[in-house]
Amino acid sequence: MTDIFDTLESEVRSYSRSWPAVFTRAEGARQWAEDGGEYVDFFAGAGALNYGHNNPAVMEPLIRYLQSGAVLHSLDMKTPAKREFLETFRDLILRPRHLDYRVMFPGPTGTNTVEAALKLARKVTGRQHILSFTNAFHGMTLGSLSVTGNSMKRQGAGIPLTNSSKIPYDDYLDGETPDLLWLERVLEDSGSGVDRPAAIIVETVQGEGGVRAARADWLRGLSELCRRHGILLIVDDVQAGCGRTGSFFSFEESGIVPDIVCLSKSISGSGLPMALTLFRPELDVWAPGEHNGTFRGNAPAFVTATAALRTYWADASFQNLLGGTVAQLQRWMQSIVAEVDGASIRGRGLLAGICFENPGTAERVAAESFASGLLVETSGPRNEVLKLMPPLTISTRDLDAGFEILAAAVRAQTREPEPAGV
Amino acid sequence: MTDIFDTLESEVRSYSRSWPAVFTRAEGARQWAEDGGEYVDFFAGAGALNYGHNNPAVMEPLIRYLQSGAVLHSLDMKTPAKREFLETFRDLILRPRHLDYRVMFPGPTGTNTVEAALKLARKVTGRQHILSFTNAFHGMTLGSLSVTGNSMKRQGAGIPLTNSSKIPYDDYLDGETPDLLWLERVLEDSGSGVDRPAAIIVETVQGEGGVRAARADWLRGLSELCRRHGILLIVDDVQAGCGRTGSFFSFEESGIVPDIVCLSKSISGSGLPMALTLFRPELDVWAPGEHNGTFRGNAPAFVTATAALRTYWADASFQNLLGGTVAQLQRWMQSIVAEVDGASIRGRGLLAGICFENPGTAERVAAESFASGLLVETSGPRNEVLKLMPPLTISTRDLDAGFEILAAAVRAQTREPEPAGV
Amino acid sequence: MTDIFDTLESEVRSYSRSWPAVFTRAEGARQWAEDGGEYVDFFAGAGALNYGHNNPAVMEPLIRYLQSGAVLHSLDMKTPAKREFLETFRDLILRPRHLDYRVMFPGPTGTNTVEAALKLARKVTGRQHILSFTNAFHGMTLGSLSVTGNSMKRQGAGIPLTNSSKIPYDDYLDGETPDLLWLERVLEDSGSGVDRPAAIIVETVQGEGGVRAARADWLRGLSELCRRHGILLIVDDVQAGCGRTGSFFSFEESGIVPDIVCLSKSISGSGLPMALTLFRPELDVWAPGEHNGTFRGNAPAFVTATAALRTYWADASFQNLLGGTVAQLQRWMQSIVAEVDGASIRGRGLLAGICFENPGTAERVAAESFASGLLVETSGPRNEVLKLMPPLTISTRDLDAGFEILAAAVRAQTREPEPAGV
Amino acid sequence: MTDIFDTLESEVRSYSRSWPAVFTRAEGARQWAEDGGEYVDFFAGAGALNYGHNNPAVMEPLIRYLQSGAVLHSLDMKTPAKREFLETFRDLILRPRHLDYRVMFPGPTGTNTVEAALKLARKVTGRQHILSFTNAFHGMTLGSLSVTGNSMKRQGAGIPLTNSSKIPYDDYLDGETPDLLWLERVLEDSGSGVDRPAAIIVETVQGEGGVRAARADWLRGLSELCRRHGILLIVDDVQAGCGRTGSFFSFEESGIVPDIVCLSKSISGSGLPMALTLFRPELDVWAPGEHNGTFRGNAPAFVTATAALRTYWADASFQNLLGGTVAQLQRWMQSIVAEVDGASIRGRGLLAGICFENPGTAERVAAESFASGLLVETSGPRNEVLKLMPPLTISTRDLDAGFEILAAAVRAQTREPEPAGV
Repeated sequence: MTDIFDTLESEVRSYSRSWPAVFTRAEGARQWAEDGGEYVDFFAGAGALNYGHNNPAVMEPLIRYLQSGAVLHSLDMKTPAKREFLETFRDLILRPRHLDYRVMFPGPTGTNTVEAALKLARKVTGRQHILSFTNAFHGMTLGSLSVTGNSMKRQGAGIPLTNSSKIPYDDYLDGETPDLLWLERVLEDSGSGVDRPAAIIVETVQGEGGVRAARADWLRGLSELCRRHGILLIVDDVQAGCGRTGSFFSFEESGIVPDIVCLSKSISGSGLPMALTLFRPELDVWAPGEHNGTFRGNAPAFVTATAALRTYWADASFQNLLGGTVAQLQRWMQSIVAEVDGASIRGRGLLAGICFENPGTAERVAAESFASGLLVETSGPRNEVLKLMPPLTISTRDLDAGFEILAAAVRAQTREPEPAGV
Repeated sequence: MTDIFDTLESEVRSYSRSWPAVFTRAEGARQWAEDGGEYVDFFAGAGALNYGHNNPAVMEPLIRYLQSGAVLHSLDMKTPAKREFLETFRDLILRPRHLDYRVMFPGPTGTNTVEAALKLARKVTGRQHILSFTNAFHGMTLGSLSVTGNSMKRQGAGIPLTNSSKIPYDDYLDGETPDLLWLERVLEDSGSGVDRPAAIIVETVQGEGGVRAARADWLRGLSELCRRHGILLIVDDVQAGCGRTGSFFSFEESGIVPDIVCLSKSISGSGLPMALTLFRPELDVWAPGEHNGTFRGNAPAFVTATAALRTYWADASFQNLLGGTVAQLQRWMQSIVAEVDGASIRGRGLLAGICFENPGTAERVAAESFASGLLVETSGPRNEVLKLMPPLTISTRDLDAGFEILAAAVRAQTREPEPAGV
Repeated sequence: MTDIFDTLESEVRSYSRSWPAVFTRAEGARQWAEDGGEYVDFFAGAGALNYGHNNPAVMEPLIRYLQSGAVLHSLDMKTPAKREFLETFRDLILRPRHLDYRVMFPGPTGTNTVEAALKLARKVTGRQHILSFTNAFHGMTLGSLSVTGNSMKRQGAGIPLTNSSKIPYDDYLDGETPDLLWLERVLEDSGSGVDRPAAIIVETVQGEGGVRAARADWLRGLSELCRRHGILLIVDDVQAGCGRTGSFFSFEESGIVPDIVCLSKSISGSGLPMALTLFRPELDVWAPGEHNGTFRGNAPAFVTATAALRTYWADASFQNLLGGTVAQLQRWMQSIVAEVDGASIRGRGLLAGICFENPGTAERVAAESFASGLLVETSGPRNEVLKLMPPLTISTRDLDAGFEILAAAVRAQTREPEPAGV
Repeated sequence: MTDIFDTLESEVRSYSRSWPAVFTRAEGARQWAEDGGEYVDFFAGAGALNYGHNNPAVMEPLIRYLQSGAVLHSLDMKTPAKREFLETFRDLILRPRHLDYRVMFPGPTGTNTVEAALKLARKVTGRQHILSFTNAFHGMTLGSLSVTGNSMKRQGAGIPLTNSSKIPYDDYLDGETPDLLWLERVLEDSGSGVDRPAAIIVETVQGEGGVRAARADWLRGLSELCRRHGILLIVDDVQAGCGRTGSFFSFEESGIVPDIVCLSKSISGSGLPMALTLFRPELDVWAPGEHNGTFRGNAPAFVTATAALRTYWADASFQNLLGGTVAQLQRWMQSIVAEVDGASIRGRGLLAGICFENPGTAERVAAESFASGLLVETSGPRNEVLKLMPPLTISTRDLDAGFEILAAAVRAQTREPEPAGV
């Protein structure tokens, strides 16, 4: 039976193919479908729902705001909603972390903030080349796509993707080569043919590229190398930021201070579209209006963003709670990989994954999990990794419930077939 | 006195410089500022607020939806909100106009839908070049920027913008050359050096480029020429669509049927971020997930979009009312230009403009209008055009009120200086 | 019967297909084939043999030089042969024309000098875009190809040709639009989307593009426009230079002084590979070795170049003789076109052509001419033009002989078929 | 005292700065200057004079040819000179090596053959990306420059160099990483972001990049990897070919068979401009005239090329002699590096180098050598390598004479300074 999604919507849709349910209601880490199905959510809006679905801490201020007659759409005009967001972000996020960033509203999606970051890096340095990493994912518009790794998505451009080249991510060469050796060599060698870049853009954990986490040491080495060569370091924290790895910014653990930071997904706290580009004040060489966009002033998102920051980041308590959730997740993952030959754990914090050796296993486990009431997706160039990304606010009970489904699905999909005829 | 917008927000902000008020409340075609100022709105969120601020027809369903616990963020998963939007769009917009388009949700902003359109056109044709028009505006990400005209914004890319070239828009050469002559010639001439394009992208009215409206004949000629040469025609209806020119799509008057249509801005009906890419079914060659994005499923926007379509486009009454508003606007514009040497009227429907001969006049009139309680912006490569874009739902009274302010400002700024000493 | 040219040489060969003779001997405007065939030469090595084949004025000094033990190959080292060439070129060509150019040896072919010119223009201006003309031909390497018009040759690049766009050549729009109107408009309009170019590169007569000659007025307008907008003007005189249009440089008649001039083909006077790039001294910002090449110091070519300059350009006598040859050519062309409906004369000086209205006529005439003992090729995007380019030194007798063959071939190919059954 | 080279010739000249003599006469491995200076030549026209200056074996047939009245310039028309070259090349070079290549004449310089190779690889595969190696040198036109490493020369392009990226050459990472590991990984990983290339272009010895020789094993690994991934392998043998490394093609020792081979420099045997592109017959998909050029038929070069092949490559005797010369060169280099801390030997055959640890040493040695009568240049990104490239035909006596000068210069420039006051 076909429905209007099949007949009217473009073939480009993808999640609705793996998860064909019609989702009617959602709360916290749970979603319900029209046919009565109930699902634990280990997907969290691909990282846009770090605080869960319909979290009352953000929904109540949102509804009050909409009822108040305040401005909903404002481009880059001044509104109290934006002022409150800026003040809250400064007071609860930037100042406590001694970060002296300027805040840019580049348009409300991840690819907007990446495009803005690339433009700014090129403008500041007068250079044109950008380096990015193997298996990186930064977005679908032409500039972001040029620094993305996935070949299927790259071919979607229909034109050669230029002005960037790829360097190996942490441990890409399986430890067989010293960290950053290739990058060091080409930057020091005026004959390398790798043009001195304006910037290097990096995810501290590669969410789409297989849930690979860079080590803190490697990030520090990268940061130091950028400093030494006068290259700007851009951290794309669209997926790994907003608490996902255990601290607000994913780079806090390593101690580095990027020149430019890209935020989106969970920055609104509610799933509403919003993005930020942060950069050191001396990089703020934009001319007024040089980068613009109609939906830079999505006031409802400012309201929920402010509420989320105030609820979760006013003190250390949420971050401390997160530590417990991460520990619970780790225990579950370890118990699962212990039973599967060649399976291994990936990621950091609540941006985690289980990598399977046999092709197809992760996809079959995800399908079986869906059938049993768990939303979990795969990641990596061959979809070889189960990507585990529950809401940060998930309860112990829901996390256990999800993992029970997952563990059973893994067992079912990795069990040796019974010998025939027995 | 500086505020946090000055100290923390990036220099890239622009509207907040011309209109430094802090806007607290908005309703219909009116906005109020923190300092008590009241403004008539001839700007309408740069076209994102065609149905006015906080229109109860869209706000009430929105608030109910948010209170219901339904899914807010869904990527490309199925939800009742999306189903209702798709059904409503099909029944009220596509079918009555005999348009057999597939609907793609490409990410929630104008530049997302343009990037998706360019990718699809290149994929379908296997060609790489795109033609766009002098003074075009299509967006700020790299692909959209490459087909945009404004040199300041283009330089923001920091790299050469490639794989596209410019052709003269209707009347660009002041009637001194036959319509589409240059385009005809280069396409017929295998030695022209203008590579056969995948697509031509056009705005039927160039909102940012000086509120220039293409004539219906010219659009028909362009469409016919594309058909003859196997070139896809993309209409970027982000600003001119959703009723702005008097019909739902801006191209209806001309009778052409574009291969691909880009919609955003007012498609959500509320100012919430949303965008669509429409295309003929045989062009739907996307692989699943080949273009994706986190905020493609902004359910609140689907809800307000559905409400707006049902309220305004279920029958012809709104379109008929629009005709009256356009007539009132025309009378006002004519009375203004009649008093100013060299002033002329631009645009179509409620995407209108007054072009002044003397440089700086339009900007001074806009500044004086703001001081007197009217939001109106300028457009064009030298900001030579006052761009008049009230909500489509503006009342006769508000339209008169706005124009009274505007007419006074024009008089003040174009009056001959009194001879000194008299 | 196949020969080694068919079996071993690449399919890319072309002239040997139209003219399958094996040419054994050549003198002046005559060539002889292995099978005894004799040919009048209206092709002149595609412009590389302006002084005819094996002209004793250049061959005798060449042979003496080779017998002397002097340096044959010298990259950019100093040799007496190069010194004599530089002195002669300065004294006989530059000074009498009040041209204060620096001389660069960019590698010995036309495409080398064009690539050097484009690089220099980009370096001097810091801009990246180059404008070139519809139907232009500038060479086969990637930079030159990007400013060339022919679509078959452009597609040979296998990648999009970027950083340049096309503007209409003189009379491209059949007089239906004022000269240079499009160019004027886009350069004055900061919103045109045509990036301000580093340079405009032009052929005063488009040899490959259909033997179209620009009018002197148009060239002056173009030069003035470049000056006004700070754009460098590059004249590609590879084919039209060295006397081909009646003066040493093809632009002398118009009185313009290009910023950069590209010479090759007949600059060696003998058919040996050689090229020059000339530019105003203030543009000489090259770093040592920034552009190099193994065959920049082809001493035999310097020797024949010097001999040719001394023989033909020491005074006005050769140029005066040329006038007579041109007049004779014009009379012949007029008599031919007078007999053919729709035929017209193209070109300037001895870079001339006859354009036929019916597709295929020019190619059939060229084929029949070859069969009757005349080498003449076609030109233009549809090979619609017979391109007449005899050696400048052709005798009255040989010119008549060639035209007698040509006129007969034209008559044969354009004659009305006899009514059947008569 | 300035001369016309200083005042009229462009600043781009380079060799004439290091070696400011005016060279009047040359024979074998000796050159004489106007001021009476005599020089041993360890430069050999940058590899274009493998058979020495004015070698009578090529000069006598050349002079006879020029005296005969035969065709000098013929584009791609058939001539006996070209037929003899093709037959000789087939019989003496291709057949004995079981190489079934088609022969293309792409224009007479190294960069022409590289551009033709890149175009063909892209056309055959329909892919656009090319991989080349760190420190590669392939030429100065835009396509060749894009695959070249040197940053100064790359910046000369004035635009971003696109559609290619760099991979580490043999031993680039100092043995700290397994051979070809990076390349293997990115080609196998569909998420690497390194687009599958049309071709990989490689020099078996990097002449300009520091006289680095790839090991035969590495070349075989590269060739195997290309085969496995359906990537064309282009060997740029412009400098390393024509006997320079000890066999006619530089890749013979490794046993690989490239898909495409670029030859130029010494292929004419005389220093006259000539180039070839060789490729497997099934790659010969060129359309007639798709790549062309005025100087593809430089008949004097065909004549000397044929003479050189017949003289030196009709049997194994020349190659055997070469072995002795290489051994003599090796002994000299070993005796020199034995005396200098940190000096090392580079290269293969007579494309050899001595690398010094201290910056500036190689340049000072080259300068002192010139002062003492030896032409030797430096190479490498910091000019850290003395590049030793005598004619292949150099006598034992001349090789000793050159090395005596060189050894003395090295001693002078690397000797510890005497303690002051002793």
